[in-house]
Amino acid sequence: MKPILAITMGDPAGIGPEICARSMSHHEIYQTCRPLIVGDASIMQKAIDLLGLHLELNPIHDVKEARFTPGTADVFDLGLIDLKTFEWGKVQVQCGNAAFQYVKKAIELAMANEVDGTCTAPLNKEALHKAGHNYNGHTEIYATFTGTRKYAMLLADGPLRVIHVSTHVSLRKACDLCKKVRIIEVTELIHDACRQFGIKNPHIGIAGLNPHCSENGLFGWEEAQEIIPAVEELQRRGFNVEGPIPPDSIFAKAKCGKYDGVVAQYHDQGHIPLKVLGFNWDTETGKMLPQKGVNITLGLPIIRVSVDHGTAFDVAGKGIAAEEALLSSIDYATRMAIYRLEHKESEKNNV
Amino acid sequence: MKPILAITMGDPAGIGPEICARSMSHHEIYQTCRPLIVGDASIMQKAIDLLGLHLELNPIHDVKEARFTPGTADVFDLGLIDLKTFEWGKVQVQCGNAAFQYVKKAIELAMANEVDGTCTAPLNKEALHKAGHNYNGHTEIYATFTGTRKYAMLLADGPLRVIHVSTHVSLRKACDLCKKVRIIEVTELIHDACRQFGIKNPHIGIAGLNPHCSENGLFGWEEAQEIIPAVEELQRRGFNVEGPIPPDSIFAKAKCGKYDGVVAQYHDQGHIPLKVLGFNWDTETGKMLPQKGVNITLGLPIIRVSVDHGTAFDVAGKGIAAEEALLSSIDYATRMAIYRLEHKESEKNNV
Repeated sequence: MKPILAITMGDPAGIGPEICARSMSHHEIYQTCRPLIVGDASIMQKAIDLLGLHLELNPIHDVKEARFTPGTADVFDLGLIDLKTFEWGKVQVQCGNAAFQYVKKAIELAMANEVDGTCTAPLNKEALHKAGHNYNGHTEIYATFTGTRKYAMLLADGPLRVIHVSTHVSLRKACDLCKKVRIIEVTELIHDACRQFGIKNPHIGIAGLNPHCSENGLFGWEEAQEIIPAVEELQRRGFNVEGPIPPDSIFAKAKCGKYDGVVAQYHDQGHIPLKVLGFNWDTETGKMLPQKGVNITLGLPIIRVSVDHGTAFDVAGKGIAAEEALLSSIDYATRMAIYRLEHKESEKNNV
Repeated sequence: MKPILAITMGDPAGIGPEICARSMSHHEIYQTCRPLIVGDASIMQKAIDLLGLHLELNPIHDVKEARFTPGTADVFDLGLIDLKTFEWGKVQVQCGNAAFQYVKKAIELAMANEVDGTCTAPLNKEALHKAGHNYNGHTEIYATFTGTRKYAMLLADGPLRVIHVSTHVSLRKACDLCKKVRIIEVTELIHDACRQFGIKNPHIGIAGLNPHCSENGLFGWEEAQEIIPAVEELQRRGFNVEGPIPPDSIFAKAKCGKYDGVVAQYHDQGHIPLKVLGFNWDTETGKMLPQKGVNITLGLPIIRVSVDHGTAFDVAGKGIAAEEALLSSIDYATRMAIYRLEHKESEKNNV
């Protein structure tokens, strides 16, 4: 039961083609899934040549034509890029449009059950907008073309898997949004996601909002009025949850394997540990270098796992971009797809 | 110019005696300072024997009697512990009292300029209180016996040095305390501290309060109304400061050496990265294991650097406690003492 994964090539001018080519040359991924790039064959060939990889390109126009054998890169070829005007590392209208079309096609294939899950390489928002596709990013495109209104983002990097009660709101507003109903909602989402990753009885840690979880109400009341009631209700309903855990120790514990997932009460509570552990600042280039973090959109009818880094135009076409995050995305998407296939299978058997 | 440091032994029943003994056997520390334990010689001898160290004990009752030579442990012997009833790893009234008396003596020696700085091994609050010394911890004892009313804590662990705008208040209250005046105050403190550590022109990063620093007021106004004005005033006054920096990237940058010090806007903003990087959760014992973090009290007339871990009663007397944090404390106290001695020297020369 090897799921078929559609991997979008991302903005052709970014590092997407390179990390796709590098990932396809990891023969071991074929042991658990059947990967297929959705992009432009001509650009993929350029990336393969650039990297000097021993990969034979198989341009296809139907999933059925894919070979799924190590040493071959199956590319669902949309043929959108004119190589004569193409340049690495530049914002280009044709690239912004192409990146959008790859994603749209991958979603269509997944909605039609022709593939079992999707992974996305990075796109460039400026190029996307110049091409007339006014989306904020991947997540909005997925929401639109799958007709999804309620979704959430799970960030995973090494041992940390984090979901947030609130994200892009002020810290004051985040305090207001720390509500029992929402905490239960996101805990259910991360619990369900962890089960899809293959974790049978996920142990979820729920962070407090205030320092030291307010020391029994000494500074702050949200633990007593919102978080503890949420934890108690979840426990009553059989969830393997624990909390509230002091915000300054929950991630140190999670890093060492104590929790399969963490519910963070606000944006920076979760993003600070993720970035401190997962990113490195390059003092020479003045850039933050991410490593292998991924971003999983929960709540969609289809599977979508993305690398948690950008197009990195400054290094695109130089053959130095690392594929760890895409490999990690493929691993997560594979595990989720296997879970869903098994689930469907057992539903069929039960009928 | 090797400063004399008084190192308190901490609660005798904790890991203090062991980490003091181990630290004294690092001959290299004698190249930059003249260390001296303030404690009980009998307990120090027990720790030396337990660890099988080649250290000769030199019990003294006057700083002038100290030898300050590698291979010798000079102990300012207060002789407070009755070995017949002493036990490792237990809360004991005699130990709580002794730990208090060591600290008091070290403060007296420093206030009388008999030593140039102090380091503290951990004490146990329960034992301290049982012995009738109702202080919250070291910092309060130091404040009382040096007559200090305004002080702040700087946490240092590896490449991170962090000071907080607020600490033990609710997250809502922390938003209220994010004020220009206070930001300037703590920035001056960490700037001054970094200079005492030997950093000539410290580069200080000042964090934002809201996610993404509020994206120009999209979510939150504290950056515009409090933090940016503070940064601008500090820059006008010649400080090498930068900010506001997004809370979720400032520590990843600081970890890689971009900043000599960081101003965190609230307790968990600073404590989360410190603990995630500096602590490890031991899944077997269910304990957080700190590594080499130290805690420096700023604003005192004397130097005080403490290990950032507790008495660890569960491992005391077992010979397994690590001395990294105490060595790091000695290093920080040495650097600060040298700076102050040089400063005094140059003041004298200028007269």
